[in-house]
Amino acid sequence: MKVARIVIVAFFATAAGGAGHLLAQSSTSPNPVAQEFLNQNFPENLPDSAMVSFYPQKWQTYGSSAGRNAVFSLPGSAPELLRKGVEWAFSGAGAIPLNGPPIDKDFKTTAYTIGMAVGPSVVGGIVYQGDDNGYTYAVNAITGKLIWAHYDWNMNMSNPLVDGNRVFVSTGNAYFNYAETMKYVKGKRSVRGPGLNSIYALDRQTGREIWTYHTPGEVMPTPVEVDGFLYVGTGDGHVYKLNAENGKMVWTSDIESFVSMSSPVEGNGDIFLGGTYPNYFYALDQASGKVMWKVTIPGLVATGISDCTPAYASGIVVQEATVESGDSTKPVANVLLALDGKTGTILWQDRMANGPVPPAMKTATPMIYDNVVYEGSPVSGDYHAFDLKTGHKLWTVHLGSQIRSGAAVLDGVAYVPYHSGDIAAIRISDGKLLNKMHIGGSFGPSSPVIVGGTLYLSNVYGWLNAIPVRKILGESQSSTP
Amino acid sequence: MKVARIVIVAFFATAAGGAGHLLAQSSTSPNPVAQEFLNQNFPENLPDSAMVSFYPQKWQTYGSSAGRNAVFSLPGSAPELLRKGVEWAFSGAGAIPLNGPPIDKDFKTTAYTIGMAVGPSVVGGIVYQGDDNGYTYAVNAITGKLIWAHYDWNMNMSNPLVDGNRVFVSTGNAYFNYAETMKYVKGKRSVRGPGLNSIYALDRQTGREIWTYHTPGEVMPTPVEVDGFLYVGTGDGHVYKLNAENGKMVWTSDIESFVSMSSPVEGNGDIFLGGTYPNYFYALDQASGKVMWKVTIPGLVATGISDCTPAYASGIVVQEATVESGDSTKPVANVLLALDGKTGTILWQDRMANGPVPPAMKTATPMIYDNVVYEGSPVSGDYHAFDLKTGHKLWTVHLGSQIRSGAAVLDGVAYVPYHSGDIAAIRISDGKLLNKMHIGGSFGPSSPVIVGGTLYLSNVYGWLNAIPVRKILGESQSSTP
Repeated sequence: MKVARIVIVAFFATAAGGAGHLLAQSSTSPNPVAQEFLNQNFPENLPDSAMVSFYPQKWQTYGSSAGRNAVFSLPGSAPELLRKGVEWAFSGAGAIPLNGPPIDKDFKTTAYTIGMAVGPSVVGGIVYQGDDNGYTYAVNAITGKLIWAHYDWNMNMSNPLVDGNRVFVSTGNAYFNYAETMKYVKGKRSVRGPGLNSIYALDRQTGREIWTYHTPGEVMPTPVEVDGFLYVGTGDGHVYKLNAENGKMVWTSDIESFVSMSSPVEGNGDIFLGGTYPNYFYALDQASGKVMWKVTIPGLVATGISDCTPAYASGIVVQEATVESGDSTKPVANVLLALDGKTGTILWQDRMANGPVPPAMKTATPMIYDNVVYEGSPVSGDYHAFDLKTGHKLWTVHLGSQIRSGAAVLDGVAYVPYHSGDIAAIRISDGKLLNKMHIGGSFGPSSPVIVGGTLYLSNVYGWLNAIPVRKILGESQSSTP
Repeated sequence: MKVARIVIVAFFATAAGGAGHLLAQSSTSPNPVAQEFLNQNFPENLPDSAMVSFYPQKWQTYGSSAGRNAVFSLPGSAPELLRKGVEWAFSGAGAIPLNGPPIDKDFKTTAYTIGMAVGPSVVGGIVYQGDDNGYTYAVNAITGKLIWAHYDWNMNMSNPLVDGNRVFVSTGNAYFNYAETMKYVKGKRSVRGPGLNSIYALDRQTGREIWTYHTPGEVMPTPVEVDGFLYVGTGDGHVYKLNAENGKMVWTSDIESFVSMSSPVEGNGDIFLGGTYPNYFYALDQASGKVMWKVTIPGLVATGISDCTPAYASGIVVQEATVESGDSTKPVANVLLALDGKTGTILWQDRMANGPVPPAMKTATPMIYDNVVYEGSPVSGDYHAFDLKTGHKLWTVHLGSQIRSGAAVLDGVAYVPYHSGDIAAIRISDGKLLNKMHIGGSFGPSSPVIVGGTLYLSNVYGWLNAIPVRKILGESQSSTP
């Protein structure tokens, strides 16, 4: 059965300006064709201006804040629609049906790098989302309709930042080309990330490129914006500081390690991020780029201290790592590290249960809320809460499949998406699993965002979903918000 | 300056059928959205049925024949339009303007894997073309209008095969993920090609998937079809024989070496292709998959004997390789090998001039026509003709920039595209450079196809061009065809 639809699509090409070389133009073509798959723009889908003010107005770091709890309450005056929560699903380029086959079964080798790996950001009534199939999308937060799509030339695993009229996204992938692999074999320094690696500043309303900065290695991590400057680690072993206004480089700092999925967090005048080969967790001075301290732990495997995004609160940086367990049947374990932001001293660490080596990303994103660290383990399938200051484990709940995402905590409940395509609702006072809702597909490190009564979340099957929070709690349609 | 255009685009979704898991469906979504970037279909652009018979009706191997000279003359009864040649340009997903910046300058690291790497095939009035941005396109050979686009999930570096109602394409990329890189470091066998690697059988008229076969490693090479079976080498070190009718595997042969861009050629009941790590050139029996012989040469670098597509004629297989030169200022050289198809004995070899290490693909595709081998060197920028039987060098012309493509020979002239975005017209009797035409962009291993008066060619800036042959010769518009 074929379902045909005709829609009107407006294509545009910028014939002049800084971004010209990234758009298809027909200036040299005697008979240009009209079909372009590239950037798309549907201004008619921009949000109703009356709705814009109920949403966050900025998004300057992964997960919206250093603690990474992307939860925004609404005033009682907000429209009932927003308080009750909206519901829609948007499918990106190459999306797989949510009830499609398990990713482990039919997608061989490393096909985990598909769909939407990292979560959305929600600003001014628009949901911004990156896609491993090479797009940034802007979607109306209320209707789920596409406002614009920007073709990114590489995988976009960033959590889009938004400030003023700009959206900042970064691109790159986890691979090595043959020449770089050969350098690895010879013990030489190697650059990760074939293809065009970029940080883009896009117009928030149209997706038009304002500036682009290219780096030799991947930019899988999300930059952090502080006082008009962007900081980001890359696959070429450098941290870059860029002027957010014009994309000009202020400094680069050669840390040698390539940065995998560790999006820097800022605190106390420094930025913090993990690197691989050599494996260190770093603090860099924002003003100079100087490495203030670096720390490592024994037995790290692969991208062991660089594959998730750290969180920061109360002067403490929290990062998860992966180590060899010594148990041949369950060869690895996740370790949660709490570091003194000023010195790098390990204040406490918690080694979670041993388990099998998870495919792809081997760590989960920690989240800090109200001096409690919420953290899962893709190795064990357990989810935990720890006291931030002491490391005392408050509770553990076994969810069963790999957890890579951070949580969103609202009204005493932590919402945690995980590999099996479910979202768990966990009571934070005692770790009781209140409910599970099956969405389908599979969730990677995508952290959920809650605005009023709606939870926004994306998955590696290429879907961006808006789900009423009350549904995840298992409440009936008719319940009062 | 913004140039706005409104065009009508028809999106369609196949709600049932074998390809269901590769299409976005909304069955589990409460509020499906209309935007899908995926497969596209414009049946109104199918070629006029009166034109179909003037084109080749099958395409069963890279470059249309074992010699790889994809040139098709027209009868005097053919329409003047086809005899004079048509002219159009089609831009694929993420195309760069043809007059954009040089790829060496603005595209860092390995961004060579963009656009259309390998050339088109032209069958029944339709040009079929793969794209590193993840699409297969079917374009009307006369108008340049898009008939369908199929989203391939990975880079498509194959020269599409066409037989009966099917188009066969293959997908994959040249990278290693971190785990495979680490195996390399430990001297273990390693699989090349992260992501979803596939051989697709697509409907020739609509692009609909008929069957899909997935492999653990990349399928950058183009399969060869012989008597209803497809043979192809992959990044997991195996050669596969598939039933072209249903995609079922007949045998796999473990050759250990991963296959880079060596699309197998068939001859004498065998298929021939090159592999890397270990570096060998192989002959495999079509019936059993047994390795009949393998051969190597000293000093091979990287994918030295596996990065271009061999040609076959008169019982002789020809393959180019890359070796260390021993000269530190010009560290590599291309070597052209002529092997006895039955025994693998090296009948002759020609070592071309030393030069710098070319970025990305380091060899050119040989072409055999009328017992002459035409072959370029991306290392030296020279183009040569050799006697197939004796290896006697007939002539050399210096084109100056990297040559990776095969030639098309028509009416005593060899047409050779190369890195600088030019097509050279070389007289085959004496190697005289008759003319150069600048197209723009940059040409990789894309071999041209000539049908009547039109040369079809694609480039890594993402453009597929139809160019009247007389224009490449520098003849005026008004000359008689």
